Parts: sequence; C-alpha cells; structure tokens
Amino acid sequence: MEKNIFPEIPAIDTKVQEETRKHLNQLTKPLGSLGQLEEMVIRLAGITSQKIPDVSKKAIVVMCADHGVAGEGVSAYPQEVTGLMIQNFIRGGAAINVLARQTAAEVCVVDVGSLLIDVPEGVMNRKIRAGTANFMNMPAMEKAEALKAAETGLGVVDTLKQEGVRLLAVGEMGIGNTTAGTAIAAVFTKMPVTELTGRGTGIQEESYRHKIHVIETALHKHQPDPGNPLEVLCKVGGLEIAGMVGCIIGAAAAQIPVVIDGLISTAAALIAVKMIPGVRSYLFASHLSAEPAHSILLEELGLRPIIDAEMRLGEASGAALSFPLFDAAVALSREMATFADLGLPGPE
Amino acid sequence: MEKNIFPEIPAIDTKVQEETRKHLNQLTKPLGSLGQLEEMVIRLAGITSQKIPDVSKKAIVVMCADHGVAGEGVSAYPQEVTGLMIQNFIRGGAAINVLARQTAAEVCVVDVGSLLIDVPEGVMNRKIRAGTANFMNMPAMEKAEALKAAETGLGVVDTLKQEGVRLLAVGEMGIGNTTAGTAIAAVFTKMPVTELTGRGTGIQEESYRHKIHVIETALHKHQPDPGNPLEVLCKVGGLEIAGMVGCIIGAAAAQIPVVIDGLISTAAALIAVKMIPGVRSYLFASHLSAEPAHSILLEELGLRPIIDAEMRLGEASGAALSFPLFDAAVALSREMATFADLGLPGPE
Repeated sequence: MEKNIFPEIPAIDTKVQEETRKHLNQLTKPLGSLGQLEEMVIRLAGITSQKIPDVSKKAIVVMCADHGVAGEGVSAYPQEVTGLMIQNFIRGGAAINVLARQTAAEVCVVDVGSLLIDVPEGVMNRKIRAGTANFMNMPAMEKAEALKAAETGLGVVDTLKQEGVRLLAVGEMGIGNTTAGTAIAAVFTKMPVTELTGRGTGIQEESYRHKIHVIETALHKHQPDPGNPLEVLCKVGGLEIAGMVGCIIGAAAAQIPVVIDGLISTAAALIAVKMIPGVRSYLFASHLSAEPAHSILLEELGLRPIIDAEMRLGEASGAALSFPLFDAAVALSREMATFADLGLPGPE
Repeated sequence: MEKNIFPEIPAIDTKVQEETRKHLNQLTKPLGSLGQLEEMVIRLAGITSQKIPDVSKKAIVVMCADHGVAGEGVSAYPQEVTGLMIQNFIRGGAAINVLARQTAAEVCVVDVGSLLIDVPEGVMNRKIRAGTANFMNMPAMEKAEALKAAETGLGVVDTLKQEGVRLLAVGEMGIGNTTAGTAIAAVFTKMPVTELTGRGTGIQEESYRHKIHVIETALHKHQPDPGNPLEVLCKVGGLEIAGMVGCIIGAAAAQIPVVIDGLISTAAALIAVKMIPGVRSYLFASHLSAEPAHSILLEELGLRPIIDAEMRLGEASGAALSFPLFDAAVALSREMATFADLGLPGPE
C-alpha cells in the first residue's frame, strides 16, 4: 500500500548491453583491460538504451535536513552548521560547488527539513518539518512525513529529467546524520553497532561511545523491522534520507543512472532497493568512504566503488569526484580505434 | 659512478606544506574530511613550493620498446603489436589519446627501442636498439644502453619542463613487458615469482605457467643484485623501463610531480628510488592495476593509489585517468570558502 506513490522501474536493455560489450571488445586494447570502466559503460548502455551512452548533462542533488538526535552530542559540530552549510552551498563555497564546477554539473540544494528559518533564495524550499524528532526517544518522523520527503525527491528528479539531465549524483547535509545512517545499516545488516559506527565529522572517544549507545538504545526501543523499509526510515532515518530515497527511485524510473556517495546516501539507496528491488540496476557506487558501515552497505547492494580516498564529507562530494571517470569511460567507448582500423583481426 | 648522469633532487618544501595544511584546515569541511585529496595537495605544495599548487599544464610520456623475451610466447599478442600501437598513438586512436583529450594533456610518444623500421612522424625517434635481447638467455641489454635510454627520458622531461608542464604521467607500450616488470618486482621484493606473476594482456593457463618459468629461469641464470638497481634494469628490464627511470628522475629534479601507472611504470619508479631515494617524494600512485605485483611494489614505495578499477592496459592510462582528481584536489584548496567566510571560528 505504502509503495503506491512510487513509479514503475523499467527493465534494463540487455540487448544494447550486448552490443556495447561487443563494441568494447573491438577496441584497440587487450580484452577487458579497461576493467571497471568497461563494466560501467555496459551498465550505462543498459540503463539508457544507447550503445554509446550519453551522460554529458549532469546534476547533483543535495538533500538537507536536521536531526533531533544531534541534540545527543553525536556530532563534532553544532546543529546550526546544517543551515550555515545550506547558505554556503548557495554562495558556491562548499566542496560540492567546487567539484560541480569541475565537471559543469548543476547543484540542486533541497531543504526538506532543516531548522533554518530564512531559507535563502536558490534553495528549493520543500521543508516538511523543522528537523526530525530525537530518535533515541521517539520515532524520527511519521510515515506521512517520510513519504512526503520521498515525493519531494521524485519531483526534483522529474524536473531535472525535463531539463535533460543524463547522470545524477545524490548527497546530503545534516548534522547528526551518520548516526541515522549507521542505525539503518545496523537494522538491515544485523551487525553489531560497535562494528558499524564511525567518527562521522571527527568526534572524540567519549562522544563516539555515546553515539554507539544512542543507536543501540534507539534500535532496542523501536525494534525497526528490516522487512519494512519505510518503517526503518521513519524510526531511525531522516528527512534528507527519505528525500534521497525518492531521488533514487525517481532516477531509476526515469532511466537516469544515479551515483551514490558515502554512508548516508548508500543507506538511502539500500532502503530504496528494499522497497523496489529493480532500482538496484540504476545505482553506481562512486567512492569508498572512511565510515566503517559504508563498505558493508555497498557489499549488501553489490556495488563496487572505483575511488578509494578516505573521504568523509558527504554533500555528494565523492559522487561528484567520480563524474570525470564516467566521462572518461564513455569517451573511451566512443573514440578509441578498433582492431580493424589497425588492420588487425579482432577477437571473436 | 653509474649515477653520474643523474641530476640532484631538490628537497621538498616543508614550510609551504605546513602553510597548505593550515589553509586546508580553515576550509568549510570537517577536519581532514577530504582524506587523500588533502594529502595530495599538501604533497604537491611541497614539490612545487606553491601554497596552492599549479598542476594545470599536463603531459603524458609513453615510452615504447620491444622485448626479446616476447619470443617466449609470454604475451597474448604478437610482438608487432608494439609497432602497431605506436602508430595508433600517433593517429590518436589509443586509450591514452582519448584520456589525454579529456584533460587537455599532451601525449609524448617516445620510441626507445621498438622493432618498427619506419617510425612515423610525431613519434620522438630515440631508438637505442631494435628491442632487447631475450633475457631468458642473456641480459636484456648493456649498461651503456640502459643509461642511454635513461638519458633519453631525462631529455624528454627537460623539454616538457621548458614547455611549462606542471604534472607528468609516465607509461609504456611494449609487448612482453609485464614479464620484465614482474622479474624486477621479484628481484627487489624477494617474493616467489608465482605470487607476483599475472596474466598481462590476458594469457591462458599454459602461457601463464611458461611466463613464470621464463622469469624464474632468468633470475636463476643472471642472479641480478637488488643492491645494484642498474644491473637489475639491464639484466631483466627493458628499454622503455630505462626510459621511464630517466623520466621519473628528471621530473623529480625539475620539481615536477610525476604520476605512475601500473606494474611496469611502478617497477621503473622502484628502480629510480633505489638509485636515488630522494625521488620518492615526487611520486604519485594513480590506480591499482589487476597485476598482482603492482600492489606489492606500491607498498614497497609507500604509495597509495586512489583509483581501483581493475585496469591492466598500460600506456599511462590509469595515470591519465587520475588527472581530474589532481585538478579537483587543487580546485578544492583554491576555491572553497573558509570558516571565517561563514562567520564561524575555525579549528586551531
């Protein structure tokens, strides 16, 4: 019943994938020697139904919201930083702005639930509530709120699709949200919270131990059911996570490949896939973050990151950093000479 | 005595590195959250003596030569492919050409010893001899030849420096050269050849076992002394490997950061560092190749690759693929807002 707001996900075009695979095998290189770049192009071909996929027009969605659980002191930064960073995104001074300029990608900043009262011009103001509840005490939000945030994500992607966007990155800003991301990871993987929890923005030992305690307490109190991903999202998630779930599902529905970032967006991707398994084929990992739960969630999703740079910044920064690798992979498939061009027989 | 042709390597500017580190800590992100990108910028600052390093003008040197040991059937491709690929480089149809165009890098193709008789226009024809000897039977080359190839590399970099090149990638083309690279790895790491040997361009089981046998036989026969890197280069190396040794030393001497590629260029880097330890500070790893010896050599050099894409193509393809990450790292250090810009106190 709860899935009703979500669109159908088209199947992957395996016929075009096969054509692309054959084309790649004719290029002047040892068979398969471009490794994951070849896999990337083949997957993009299947998503876009284009033998040489076009991913030229790119956008980055940064979903922003505050977390009641930040009041527990689980972050190295005060909660106000969410709002300050939203302003920074609009002024173009954040990491994601710099990375977006490097590949001429549009940055779309969406406020689905920050505490900011005066949302600056340039932000898509889609505030559903001013921050979630502290999930150590009560569920982070109501189902209706989570669904509204997800619908917001669907709407954002719909607009981007109409603008002709061909590759989407999703990321987030929300002080306290590695606590939510780790809680989600714990629900689905059933692994001990101590093994999944990292230091987020860089907390000290005492806060780190408290962060683990907060997550363990919340999971014990709410008993989120891993068989009900919407319930998990409401109980220990966040509004920006729900927004990313919508973006990811919306991208898949629109046949737009979607690049996830670190722990939080990967937790959103896992929820999206648990809701609608067909979404998985549209997902691309970008980097491996320094958060311990990240590699575990990527493995759960069967995704393999190409960049390993110990980043832990969020904002879709790792995803944006991977955009030139997508461009390179596609350019190789489009521009390399074939064995025939060199007067050599190709492989079968 | 043999080191006399090689220039002095300047020390790294640790004062500028400290300034860069302080600057990075003032940017609007959790401390250290850009991970390896921050390390990269700090290292570039120390090399260039620039707080915000300039790596805008880039070049890629592809050293090409043939290997007598290819006659043993250690590659999936016939030896003629070296010459055909040299022609492909000049026509712009190889992977490295495509990747170079993506970041507006110059490609410099140097023939230090291919079997090609009519070297096409556009190639720097610096042929020292037409391929090495089969090192299963005799040393691959004379010391004078290896030194001449290294001097060629020094000269190429000198020209590029005068053109204003600020970032250099080194790579190679030479059918049979993973056999040489693996032999070099075995000498310096003293690890079993069976653990180091990979499938190069994609050889089948029988050729793979013969490749191991060829390397073991050569090492047993020549007993190259790991304490004498030039001897190792002559006995089981190659002309393009010697050329890359010269490029790497030349880049370090010219304070140009040098990005290495896969197994073969990393073997060259190890020889360069064994000759002149100060070279190490100028080296950057790019990707982790599918060849098993590669990660072992990178560890030996204390270098950490950022890209892990199971590539095994050579030509400096992995190094060129990493260029946008260098641009991104520098752009972040140059363009991000500071905490002061947001009206926040920065860290100490």
